[in-house]
Amino acid sequence: MAATGVRLTLAYDGSGFRGWARQRDQRTVEGALEGALSRVLGSSPRLSVAGRTDAGVHARGQVASFRWDAGVDPARLQRGLNAMLAPEVVVLDARPAPEGFDARFSATAREYRYRIDLGAWPDPFEARFVWHRPGSPALAPMRAAARSLLGEHDFAAFCRRPPDGSPTVRRLERLAVARSGDRLEICARANAFLHQMVRSLVGTLLAAGDGARDPAEMSEILASRDRRRAGPVAPPHGLCLERVVYAHR
Amino acid sequence: MAATGVRLTLAYDGSGFRGWARQRDQRTVEGALEGALSRVLGSSPRLSVAGRTDAGVHARGQVASFRWDAGVDPARLQRGLNAMLAPEVVVLDARPAPEGFDARFSATAREYRYRIDLGAWPDPFEARFVWHRPGSPALAPMRAAARSLLGEHDFAAFCRRPPDGSPTVRRLERLAVARSGDRLEICARANAFLHQMVRSLVGTLLAAGDGARDPAEMSEILASRDRRRAGPVAPPHGLCLERVVYAHR
Repeated sequence: MAATGVRLTLAYDGSGFRGWARQRDQRTVEGALEGALSRVLGSSPRLSVAGRTDAGVHARGQVASFRWDAGVDPARLQRGLNAMLAPEVVVLDARPAPEGFDARFSATAREYRYRIDLGAWPDPFEARFVWHRPGSPALAPMRAAARSLLGEHDFAAFCRRPPDGSPTVRRLERLAVARSGDRLEICARANAFLHQMVRSLVGTLLAAGDGARDPAEMSEILASRDRRRAGPVAPPHGLCLERVVYAHR
Repeated sequence: MAATGVRLTLAYDGSGFRGWARQRDQRTVEGALEGALSRVLGSSPRLSVAGRTDAGVHARGQVASFRWDAGVDPARLQRGLNAMLAPEVVVLDARPAPEGFDARFSATAREYRYRIDLGAWPDPFEARFVWHRPGSPALAPMRAAARSLLGEHDFAAFCRRPPDGSPTVRRLERLAVARSGDRLEICARANAFLHQMVRSLVGTLLAAGDGARDPAEMSEILASRDRRRAGPVAPPHGLCLERVVYAHR
């Protein structure tokens, strides 16, 4: 029988996981999903994923794919996985993937959203998914800083240095700041992101909003490739992978 | 110094608590609040509360009050309590209470909301606060059943029988069913509620929506005072005490 490609769209509450990527003796989303897949399929496929989310980061539209040397009924697979994983991890969609599809390498862009609660007191119903940061950062300098960061740059100052020395150039396509009442949201879209890059961008925009960084500094910070020049890294629980973009699908 | 009355408005995620009321060796909201109050005030006041929520039930507008034989700075009290309890329990407001105010006995009505997700799969970000119940109950019979339950009745068929044999007559002022997309919400307002009453009303309305109960049966169920005649009790985590009403305040 010909190999079958399968594409899964996932939402998860990252609070209880040490991130996406499987690690020995750690509870991870990939580990949980592989465990459930091996119970449904008999053994565990090798997963490709669009965004390797960090510990505590959430997803509403994560995409994973695998190939399997036997027929797979996507609807049955979805039911079986959700019976084991929901509501912490939910398979929102399972479908056959076209020949050559790979969740990581076929993706043309990733969209993340960072949620901040500026109110005096946190909301018990959102506290797991929103960073409570009382205050009122100024939007104009945040937006000016965001504009300076758009485009293709070396983002070495805005990430943890890759241990393998791989390139840190990315194309930042969108970095939007929106406020409604006490809720501040920062939406970031790029061809791909580096480790801690969204949280570092968010921390830097907030520093600009607080007056601790000048929006005019952004080009210098990029050029410095020095992480200490950027703002602090925002905590993981406000961050969520919202959507992965694929061409022609 | 004259005794001071204090009124607290509270929100809490009830997931991790065995309900409001203090119990030996159990984690309860009252117990947590008393512990925090005794650290701020030096010893613990006797609390009055508007709604003794069950294990797993949430609140966005719970009201508690106490009297204290010394001056209390409400703003300082709020900061101190939130520093210890937030984000699981949040003091939204703390203010002096007028002479004679009692959170329980001064309340003229309580409003609860029950949230249901009718979609095929649960939402990881709402699962703690919304009952996932896939399906599509018919709204018309739910609303017809709700109308028959309005007014002053003996609700013995819709509650756990009070162990002290106290009266089970209550005045149900509102029982509204609203659907938006996959979200179904039932809002209940009464002068006061009995133990498990909202969850029993919700289970019975859903039974009417599923065709398992006839809306015309409601008067007979009330008259029977027999709990087995009503529908099943909905789980606690979909329920939230939204608001307490006080006259002239």
